[in-house]
Amino acid sequence: MSTQSRSEITRSNVIEKTIGLINTAGYTATSMDDIIKETGVKKGNLYFHFSSKEELVLKVLEKAREDYFTYLIKSLVFDSPLKNIESLLEAVFRFHKSRKFTGGCIFGNIILELSESNPRISSVASSALQEWIDLMTDLLSKGISLGEINLPLPAGTVAEHIVASMEGGIMLSRAKKSSRPLRDSMNTIYFMLGIKQSRA
Amino acid sequence: MSTQSRSEITRSNVIEKTIGLINTAGYTATSMDDIIKETGVKKGNLYFHFSSKEELVLKVLEKAREDYFTYLIKSLVFDSPLKNIESLLEAVFRFHKSRKFTGGCIFGNIILELSESNPRISSVASSALQEWIDLMTDLLSKGISLGEINLPLPAGTVAEHIVASMEGGIMLSRAKKSSRPLRDSMNTIYFMLGIKQSRA
Repeated sequence: MSTQSRSEITRSNVIEKTIGLINTAGYTATSMDDIIKETGVKKGNLYFHFSSKEELVLKVLEKAREDYFTYLIKSLVFDSPLKNIESLLEAVFRFHKSRKFTGGCIFGNIILELSESNPRISSVASSALQEWIDLMTDLLSKGISLGEINLPLPAGTVAEHIVASMEGGIMLSRAKKSSRPLRDSMNTIYFMLGIKQSRA
Repeated sequence: MSTQSRSEITRSNVIEKTIGLINTAGYTATSMDDIIKETGVKKGNLYFHFSSKEELVLKVLEKAREDYFTYLIKSLVFDSPLKNIESLLEAVFRFHKSRKFTGGCIFGNIILELSESNPRISSVASSALQEWIDLMTDLLSKGISLGEINLPLPAGTVAEHIVASMEGGIMLSRAKKSSRPLRDSMNTIYFMLGIKQSRA
């Protein structure tokens, strides 16, 4: 194994474990010592890769954003924009259900914790959610131009509403440790868009 | 001034200032020393009223819940349930706009920070949001039975969706320091319920 690849493995391990720590305890409550304890990486080695907790968390958010969007884009397998919207929302649902609604959305968590105290970090989380809104706007616009979706509102307005209701649904499902709030939110979106399915 | 009322003033002052600290910095990052510094209350006096940070925050959430619901209920001045729904959502909008979308929703913030690490505190925040969902369910049910609202979904499902999209909209508006995300979310709710107004 080359030094290069061992170094990459250390970075990936630290990034993965830090996502978990931040999602359950939050940014402020997670210290570099907690990360050392969780990963087993030596202190000097950790600081060689990441000069501070802030630098580490910026890298963590970039990685989470890449991974999450790669995962979401994979769900867009249909010719129909409406079917792709449903498929994308179901992918979000499965993502959180598989984690038993623990941890929530790392971007939403960071925004709520750091909006006022650390704009540098929270703006990265905010632009990840904007990327999701832009993707939804694009799908809705295509659906409207193909006549699949019939709404008297701009696609961007409805996209903002859909992402807001998914983020809020993830939060309520996390609070209750139940799929119901997120599913209720999605069923209402499906009704509004004219998607017939209503899963339990 | 009697000792009783001076004591009450100290409690109210501490509770008010703590809401502000928790909303901007979060529960974990706010120490009893921060609260002493912010309020000017002596340490012994603070611990006389509240035995620990946890006890204080439980009282803070109870007070925030009472104040917020008193404020929301005041907006329900119409005979029409549909008009009351609009009036209630506009009251939520004004509440956050007057704070320039800083701080967000204390119940949502607490849920996202403490769902896994402090279920005792987060369950109080969760039940405050449930109270909001129950109020919305009641208004929707009345609107449906009066024929003002025509939806093929149970009132509880739509209520959960509305509160989720408001909470998510508050979060996105906080991230962008702009009224647009929350207003977009509300305009989509209004369209869905058949409420004609669409404010800028």
